[in-house]
Amino acid sequence: MTAAEPDVVAGGFHLSDRSTAEIDEQESYLVPLTESVRRLLDAVIRTGAGPAEAVAARATIDAITAGLNESAPPGPAGVHYNTEGRSWQWGNAAVGPRNAVAPPLRVRTDPDGVTRGEADLGVAYEGPPNHVHGGVLALLVDHVLGVTASSGRRPTMTGTLTLRYRRPTKLGPVRLEGRIVRQEGVKMFVAAEVLDDEGVTVAAEGIWIVPRWARSRTSSGSERP
Amino acid sequence: MTAAEPDVVAGGFHLSDRSTAEIDEQESYLVPLTESVRRLLDAVIRTGAGPAEAVAARATIDAITAGLNESAPPGPAGVHYNTEGRSWQWGNAAVGPRNAVAPPLRVRTDPDGVTRGEADLGVAYEGPPNHVHGGVLALLVDHVLGVTASSGRRPTMTGTLTLRYRRPTKLGPVRLEGRIVRQEGVKMFVAAEVLDDEGVTVAAEGIWIVPRWARSRTSSGSERP
Repeated sequence: MTAAEPDVVAGGFHLSDRSTAEIDEQESYLVPLTESVRRLLDAVIRTGAGPAEAVAARATIDAITAGLNESAPPGPAGVHYNTEGRSWQWGNAAVGPRNAVAPPLRVRTDPDGVTRGEADLGVAYEGPPNHVHGGVLALLVDHVLGVTASSGRRPTMTGTLTLRYRRPTKLGPVRLEGRIVRQEGVKMFVAAEVLDDEGVTVAAEGIWIVPRWARSRTSSGSERP
Repeated sequence: MTAAEPDVVAGGFHLSDRSTAEIDEQESYLVPLTESVRRLLDAVIRTGAGPAEAVAARATIDAITAGLNESAPPGPAGVHYNTEGRSWQWGNAAVGPRNAVAPPLRVRTDPDGVTRGEADLGVAYEGPPNHVHGGVLALLVDHVLGVTASSGRRPTMTGTLTLRYRRPTKLGPVRLEGRIVRQEGVKMFVAAEVLDDEGVTVAAEGIWIVPRWARSRTSSGSERP
C-alpha cells in the first residue's frame, strides 16, 4: 500500500474504514431490495402481461433506477474488507448479496476442510427445458473452487477448470462440495462436485494460482483475509 | 410426439402454435422491460440509497411483480419453436432476451462455420475487482460451444468442458468464437476462445453429446431446428 493509494491494495482489493456495524446496517435494507428485484426478474421471464402493463411497469422501474443512481458511485462494487475482518463483495456474480444476477450462492468452509456451497436455482437459471444451464453450474463450481483454493487465507485466480457433466441438473436446490487435492508451489489443485437430491450431477477439477502480486505480498510476510 | 402430449416433443422442447408475428409482438414490449430490469439491478448493486428510499423502492417493485405474476403461467419459460422456423427460449440464463440474469449473450453461426458470440459485461458480472467473474466466462463459453456443437441442426448436451484462463478479463465488451474440431459418432469435439480488445483471455475445449432421445429421433429420420 502506498501513500498515493490510501485505501487500495494490490489486485484491486480495498481496505475500507467503514465499520462492520455500518456495513450490516446498509445490507439490512439493500439485500431485501435485491431479493425483490430477483422476484421481479423471475416474473418478467414468465409474465403474459400485455403492452400497456409492460410499458407502465417499465416507466416506474426506470424512475426507481434513476433515483438509486443519484447516490451511486461510478464503477463496479469491487471487493472490500475492514480491520474487523469483515469483507464484502456486493456485486459478485455468484455470491453478491446486492446482485440480483447471483442466485446467490452461499459458501462456507467447514471444520472438516470441505468448502460447501448451496443455491436455489429458479427459472432464471434455465438452459435445457426445466434444467439448469450447464454454464450456470460452471459459474457455481468456479466460485466454490476459488474459495476452496484460497481457503480464506490468500487470493487465487482460476488457472484451469475441467467439468464433467454426468447428467442434467433439474431446476431447484443444488449443493456443491470442494476439496484441496494438493499444492505445488503457487498452484492449488482442487476438486468439486455438484449434487442434487439424487447425487452427483457434475464433477470438476481445477488448478488455481496465487497471483503474482499476492506472491510478493506473501513473501514480504504480509497477509490479508 | 404422442396424442397425450400434443405440444411437447422429447427432451422438453415445445412445438408452439403461436405465429412468429405474435412472438415478435410480445418481445417488442417485454424485451425493453427486461432491459429496464437490467439497469435496475445494476443500480441496486451500486446505489448509496438510504433505508427510506430502499423500502419505498421495494414496495413499488413488489407491486409490479404481483401484477406481472397474475398472468404468468407456473414453471420455467422452456424452449419453444413454431412451424415457421422461429424458436425462442426467453428464460435462458445466457441468451434469454426476457431474462435480466443473462447479459444477454448474442450468438450467431457465420457462413465460415465459426460460431461467434458477443456480450457487454457490466458491473453485475464482476468477480475479481474490476474483472469478469471466471465463472461468467465459463457460462458464455459453455453456451457458445453448445451452439457450435448443435450447429442449428440437432440438440446436444455438455459432456466435458475444459477452460484455460490465460489472463483476467476486464469488465466491458467481450467476444467469443467457437469451432467444431471433429465428430466421433454422437460426440462433437469443439473449441472456443474468449477475446477482449487485446486478444484471447480464455481458451476452451469440450465434448458435446447428442442426447439419447435426439439420437432415436435422428435415426428415425425426423429432424428439428
